[in-house]
Amino acid sequence: MTSSTTDAAFAFSIKANDGAARLGEMVTPHGVIRTPAFMPCGTAATVKAMYPGEVRALGTDIVLANTYHLMLRPGAERIAELGGLHRFMNWPHPIITDSGGFQVMSLSKLRKIDERGVTFRSHIDGSVYELTPERAIEIQYLLGSDITMQLDECVALPAADDVVENAMRLSLRWAERSRAAFRAQHGRALFAIVQGGTLERLRVESARTLATMDCNGYAIGGLAVGEPQETMLRMIEATEPHLPRAKPRYLMGVGTPDDIIKAVERGIDMFDCVMPTRAGRHGLAYTHFGKVNLKNARHAADPRSLDEHSTCAAAHDYSRAYLHHLIKAEEILGMMILTAINIGYYQELMRTLRAAIGEGKLTDEVDRIREGWARGDPI
Amino acid sequence: MTSSTTDAAFAFSIKANDGAARLGEMVTPHGVIRTPAFMPCGTAATVKAMYPGEVRALGTDIVLANTYHLMLRPGAERIAELGGLHRFMNWPHPIITDSGGFQVMSLSKLRKIDERGVTFRSHIDGSVYELTPERAIEIQYLLGSDITMQLDECVALPAADDVVENAMRLSLRWAERSRAAFRAQHGRALFAIVQGGTLERLRVESARTLATMDCNGYAIGGLAVGEPQETMLRMIEATEPHLPRAKPRYLMGVGTPDDIIKAVERGIDMFDCVMPTRAGRHGLAYTHFGKVNLKNARHAADPRSLDEHSTCAAAHDYSRAYLHHLIKAEEILGMMILTAINIGYYQELMRTLRAAIGEGKLTDEVDRIREGWARGDPI
Repeated sequence: MTSSTTDAAFAFSIKANDGAARLGEMVTPHGVIRTPAFMPCGTAATVKAMYPGEVRALGTDIVLANTYHLMLRPGAERIAELGGLHRFMNWPHPIITDSGGFQVMSLSKLRKIDERGVTFRSHIDGSVYELTPERAIEIQYLLGSDITMQLDECVALPAADDVVENAMRLSLRWAERSRAAFRAQHGRALFAIVQGGTLERLRVESARTLATMDCNGYAIGGLAVGEPQETMLRMIEATEPHLPRAKPRYLMGVGTPDDIIKAVERGIDMFDCVMPTRAGRHGLAYTHFGKVNLKNARHAADPRSLDEHSTCAAAHDYSRAYLHHLIKAEEILGMMILTAINIGYYQELMRTLRAAIGEGKLTDEVDRIREGWARGDPI
Repeated sequence: MTSSTTDAAFAFSIKANDGAARLGEMVTPHGVIRTPAFMPCGTAATVKAMYPGEVRALGTDIVLANTYHLMLRPGAERIAELGGLHRFMNWPHPIITDSGGFQVMSLSKLRKIDERGVTFRSHIDGSVYELTPERAIEIQYLLGSDITMQLDECVALPAADDVVENAMRLSLRWAERSRAAFRAQHGRALFAIVQGGTLERLRVESARTLATMDCNGYAIGGLAVGEPQETMLRMIEATEPHLPRAKPRYLMGVGTPDDIIKAVERGIDMFDCVMPTRAGRHGLAYTHFGKVNLKNARHAADPRSLDEHSTCAAAHDYSRAYLHHLIKAEEILGMMILTAINIGYYQELMRTLRAAIGEGKLTDEVDRIREGWARGDPI
């Protein structure tokens, strides 16, 4: 177990700008995060189908874990007794935890929301839990997160304007309570979450109000839930000018490589998404020439490696024919290899974007990336 | 792809004896196999839930792949076109393939056996295949196996004596045909299979007849199919004196660590078994203190590593509580870690047995191993 906690206070610094895009660095008790950053999902305290050492080796600075899943199983107090989440999952590097708000809406049963918080039944065993803004902060404290998220109310879109507005205002009041409950945890950070659905005026109000609360960072939540990409981008553009420039911005649950590029171009610093890991378990690979479905029969006799430009060794060690075979046979190794290739692709994309911002060449670099996608997978 | 084929002819040499136990070394076109050897099952061209590099690093000299599975999917001709099985599965070390006989009996549908061979329906898509002794040799040639097994008829036990006897005699005739079909494949080996159920006289007749055929090695098949351990050991003892002393002996489908020790003590050199990999996928771990069920609630809050004596890093990097959590949450990483720990345990057992035979201290060493098992998992 090589866990290293530093005395460093949370800090964020911007090293370079290129248009609205920012190259930055975040300091946390468990190490530095280079931004723009992609944070793989380690939902139940594991990035599915990967050893933590692999996740790190592919260029990951920080992983996301889910408060909702971990509070149900094995429980936050249990993880605290065992020395915290970093030790539990053998990941001695930075961890961000969400607050559980989104999963309560999407996974739990019989949820009931009021001013105080939300009560719901576990999707695992049906037992009843309560999650309040204060309890969400406490759970994340017990887990030992480097970055804590406030509890928010996520509404399923489309929804009536007044429903979206009420949820946004409740989330603001919960942000205040979260701020009060968080107090000063040395080195750790608290991020607030902008809500407001697809209504610009609500997004602006949410961002402006949260900006007065002096949180360590600001997330944009409630997007990437099925709305068109242009709507998502419009919401980012409406929100971004009202967020403190010196604080990191995190677009929750996003997204495809294309989504990420467009959000980076609009000033977003952090991303998380299940896509690379989930796609990997279902036979889909992200490559320099677009998304490739290894289930497709065209790969069955193809001796070529998946992506000769990949920085992930797994992309070179096995033929497309072998990957096709593993996926058809539902072999775990197929999921392992494709998950690693996809995380490798996402992290290389972030590395490329960071380098380009640093050199003031983001537009050129993005053109080059898009050329590869446009060319398509070579037959 | 680091594949290395040598010009070496197949050879087996015995380096030391300790009672009936033998320390040996087998030379194949893809490298050396130290015996007694445990051969992990790479059924569908993958040792389930492990990267090939991990399988190797844990001390594996040779893996077993299944003719039955590979002939159905992706097909032997397909694998040959792709450069053979070693390249296909990125395992540049020795490979043994079974002949498909056992799986035809246990997995396929509507099988029909006659003198010529066996016809059956695939358990995957219901299509009809024929497997003859000659086709089994051809398939294994196409795969590029270092060690080829003859096609045999495996009967489900218990069975009437005449059924067992007829199957044994048919397997002898198929051995002759396999020998003729195999001809001289430079460096590669052909193993014949002793059958005869649990009837000593049939085992003796089978072994004596096969010994005249000058194969490269001899397997004992049709055991470890549910009979008591003492019956299996009695069959080994009846067979062993009639097998050529200078040739390797392989006990197919065996077994538990205890089975393996007792068979090594009776002169067996090679083993394969799905136990360590299958158990790992179901939350069971082999340790120096016996078999441990990680699903058991007693591990839920246990911060200790699984087995402080393990030579597998994975056994030290994670707590029992974490492994319990992964297994309960059905996380792939749990299967990956426990499979690696189990293969690590089996290979360390083989290493220990080999060292003990070399020093003439097998009895003492086995006592020491059994003491650990008797002590049980420390609570």
